[in-house]
Amino acid sequence: MFKLDERLANDTIHLGDLNLSRVLLMNDSQYPWIILVPVINDVSEIHQLDEQQRSQLAYESNAVASLMDQEFSADKMNIAALGNVVAQLHIHHVARFQSDKAWPAPVWGAYPTQAYQLEALNQMVERLQLMLSKIEGFQAI
Amino acid sequence: MFKLDERLANDTIHLGDLNLSRVLLMNDSQYPWIILVPVINDVSEIHQLDEQQRSQLAYESNAVASLMDQEFSADKMNIAALGNVVAQLHIHHVARFQSDKAWPAPVWGAYPTQAYQLEALNQMVERLQLMLSKIEGFQAI
Repeated sequence: MFKLDERLANDTIHLGDLNLSRVLLMNDSQYPWIILVPVINDVSEIHQLDEQQRSQLAYESNAVASLMDQEFSADKMNIAALGNVVAQLHIHHVARFQSDKAWPAPVWGAYPTQAYQLEALNQMVERLQLMLSKIEGFQAI
Repeated sequence: MFKLDERLANDTIHLGDLNLSRVLLMNDSQYPWIILVPVINDVSEIHQLDEQQRSQLAYESNAVASLMDQEFSADKMNIAALGNVVAQLHIHHVARFQSDKAWPAPVWGAYPTQAYQLEALNQMVERLQLMLSKIEGFQAI
């Protein structure tokens, strides 16, 4: 049975699932920020996936990045597999703007997170679930 | 004719070329750090590549990450496409250690780079070129 890392669970809202990955919204209202977590236990590196899983992850990551870029008219997408704090494999997708607080620095560690207010959160979840429904296999939670 | 971004050119040493990407060593002796730059002009996002290019980039990135992980017995590989400063598409591959200076923070912006001394640079280049020769299509410079 798949177990999502507790810290990831606490920091995010579950938007739904793709064929391989759980789709999470980072609870930080400063940037549109989606995290994909392949639903496989005990994997911390992309190269530990088998070829089919890697190819599916590349498809899902690419679709999420491309849709976010369009949806938010981002100046740049930041995509990263870091995992120094949370080892469970997870891929960040952050829409960045020249006007955002941390620009041009990376978002990790730049500023404390700012949780969404309830109404803004509901709007963002609805907007992202609609966006994600364009990806084959997406099931909203 | 492909033009490598000047800042990337200044900050790195050209190790060789894969079928899609130029392979660069970041001139920062604090971490083993390889950057892949697809040899295509005017691309800043992975999702701007066509499907074949994306699949080749995934292959090359995965091979580099997997070999670095082994070669350096990394505690974690950090892989990222950021590009807020240098827009030309480039993918970072950084071998991280619990003992490195910036751990567990990301390396970008953590500390000023520390250029390699000449002998250490020559050793690292030789070591990485030998490592990279295991990837199909690699041609050392």
